[in-house]
Amino acid sequence: MNAVVGYYTTDFGELWEHSLDSLIHEAMYGVLHASNMDPKHVDAVFLGNMLGGVLNDQLLLSSHVCQDLGKNIPVYRMEAACASGGLAFQAATEYLSAGKNRTVLVVGAEKMTDQTPDLVTKSLATAAATEEQHVGLTFPGLYGIMAQAYLERFGYTEEHLAYISVKNHDHATRNKHAQFHIPMTVDQVMASMYVAKPLKVLDSSPISDGAAAVIISNDPKVISSHQSVRILASETATDTAELARRTDITSLQSTKIASNKAFKQAKLTHKDIDVLELHDCFTIAEILAMEDLGFWAPGKGGAYAKEMRTHINSSYPLTANTSGGLKAAGHPVGATGVKQIGELYLQLTQNASERQVKKAQYGLAHNVGGSGGVAVVSILGV
Amino acid sequence: MNAVVGYYTTDFGELWEHSLDSLIHEAMYGVLHASNMDPKHVDAVFLGNMLGGVLNDQLLLSSHVCQDLGKNIPVYRMEAACASGGLAFQAATEYLSAGKNRTVLVVGAEKMTDQTPDLVTKSLATAAATEEQHVGLTFPGLYGIMAQAYLERFGYTEEHLAYISVKNHDHATRNKHAQFHIPMTVDQVMASMYVAKPLKVLDSSPISDGAAAVIISNDPKVISSHQSVRILASETATDTAELARRTDITSLQSTKIASNKAFKQAKLTHKDIDVLELHDCFTIAEILAMEDLGFWAPGKGGAYAKEMRTHINSSYPLTANTSGGLKAAGHPVGATGVKQIGELYLQLTQNASERQVKKAQYGLAHNVGGSGGVAVVSILGV
Repeated sequence: MNAVVGYYTTDFGELWEHSLDSLIHEAMYGVLHASNMDPKHVDAVFLGNMLGGVLNDQLLLSSHVCQDLGKNIPVYRMEAACASGGLAFQAATEYLSAGKNRTVLVVGAEKMTDQTPDLVTKSLATAAATEEQHVGLTFPGLYGIMAQAYLERFGYTEEHLAYISVKNHDHATRNKHAQFHIPMTVDQVMASMYVAKPLKVLDSSPISDGAAAVIISNDPKVISSHQSVRILASETATDTAELARRTDITSLQSTKIASNKAFKQAKLTHKDIDVLELHDCFTIAEILAMEDLGFWAPGKGGAYAKEMRTHINSSYPLTANTSGGLKAAGHPVGATGVKQIGELYLQLTQNASERQVKKAQYGLAHNVGGSGGVAVVSILGV
Repeated sequence: MNAVVGYYTTDFGELWEHSLDSLIHEAMYGVLHASNMDPKHVDAVFLGNMLGGVLNDQLLLSSHVCQDLGKNIPVYRMEAACASGGLAFQAATEYLSAGKNRTVLVVGAEKMTDQTPDLVTKSLATAAATEEQHVGLTFPGLYGIMAQAYLERFGYTEEHLAYISVKNHDHATRNKHAQFHIPMTVDQVMASMYVAKPLKVLDSSPISDGAAAVIISNDPKVISSHQSVRILASETATDTAELARRTDITSLQSTKIASNKAFKQAKLTHKDIDVLELHDCFTIAEILAMEDLGFWAPGKGGAYAKEMRTHINSSYPLTANTSGGLKAAGHPVGATGVKQIGELYLQLTQNASERQVKKAQYGLAHNVGGSGGVAVVSILGV
């Protein structure tokens, strides 16, 4: 059985004093220190990063990792757009499943704020289909299309979306590493400017710097000597690059497939899950995720979002995005999927301080690349 | 036991009529057709590509692969600079070793010639250390430093390097997919202009477009129903990003470590190997590879290169780069490491036509990222 045995995250935000290398360094040595380990205990590194080549002129980050750890071990850099971190984690679990006793460091990192927002938006859009880029579609545009279709199909308004932002901003006030610690009201979200109708600035995750790292192991000695959380499943699926080629744009097929495989692998039902980290790059994405993962029936998401059912103080049992989600904790894209695993680790080891979900035993993380071209779903349990 | 069960390569060269997507498409359906398979037989895809984000505005290529295959399977895009293809193959072997019966398509691709050589050289240089980039070092410069150190240390001349180019150009005349089919003389190589002294244009691999794909499997039914070649070992190691941080710049530590691990895993000695595909991004690199892999003693490479010991018509038993190598077959960087495996597959199944090494039973492929920041060494056998 594979397990997570340690976690560290840098602050997420506009970190002017940090480079991509220094973020990776802080996260790697942070998790080693937190786990009372040093590089000699690590057999391989999986690195999630999307834009190192495009924004930071840094490819072959594997050699940076080697130089920083002082160890010539295998390093695998994975790129799956905004699911790069989640896929690095998923691939690392496959690597461990080969059976040798191994301990692997998974690090996700992105350094985005050294460039202009225009360039960052254009760079992120390289994860869209070529045909979409050529007609000027960016990710706010793609998710705007999905949001509009969802609102029209199920008779909701922009206000229903706004509650996701309000909830996640409230959660982020309890997370000292979050990019934003500002509570938001529905009125504030509704009053913010459009980026791609019906989505507004305050429906959208920010541009962020940050890195996060976990250590995972299948070595019984390593697992028993640490506070550990079992990795019950980690699955990935893909979908078409073009939104126009899908039969339904109010759900993500990749999420559905990865989720079904993960629940089957974990031998759990939806009622077993206590805490979720979801890919809310835009508010609509969290609503679609709740439906595609099977927690809410199709079309119910708008109404349930407005009830703030997944808020930590809600009377409903399931809590989503205690970290603040991508929306309010920030979205350094390569780091996000690893931070999600780490947030579950904190929750399931009862170390989530003022945002602790009581008696959390099982958690699910959901990380998406592009408009759903890749999804990764992982289920953890104590 | 994992095995290679099929191979396809596009032509390598300046392929104006091809996009990155169409190269990937041709290679994937080419290898499926060659293997009498279709997408339903494939459980996952590993994709090696370096510069999709930088040169082609295409990240999240996983979704392109899904769309092209019409199948929502896991797709892993690996980036390790010029070792992206080799590392995709290596990671795929780890994935298979998890034990489930699986069949995986490994594809490597790069589309480089749509951009100016200046931009390509700058983009490739993102695989150098930040400090190296800042002082203006490109890869010709880095390998030029290594070449100069080697020539000075062991008392060789630029002419010794030239023979590697002559040999590989001669081999490429027998490979219809090679970028160049022009035999070269030592005089021609020596008369070509310097790109980074002591390295000249004709010491250097070209800028290329191309894609290559192999299908690998651990499923006994799949293996027994195809011409198959066993994967006896595939290992990777890393090294510092900065050349200046290494104790020796006339050898690559990453190659040595990966090679030692691979021979140990394969339970073979150097004398068992019949055919090599080596990472000759520059002529010096093939000489260093022969020494670092343990085939030639340190410092002997210059003399042995001049004797053309690894030419297919040489009286010595070991043949290197029958494909023409990176130098003459071309170097679409993400494709190179996969093409190397494919060339060994052709040799070991006795399908290498006019460049067939007689009775070839064991082959070794060696793929390098950057100035040695990553190396992958794989050993195959019938």
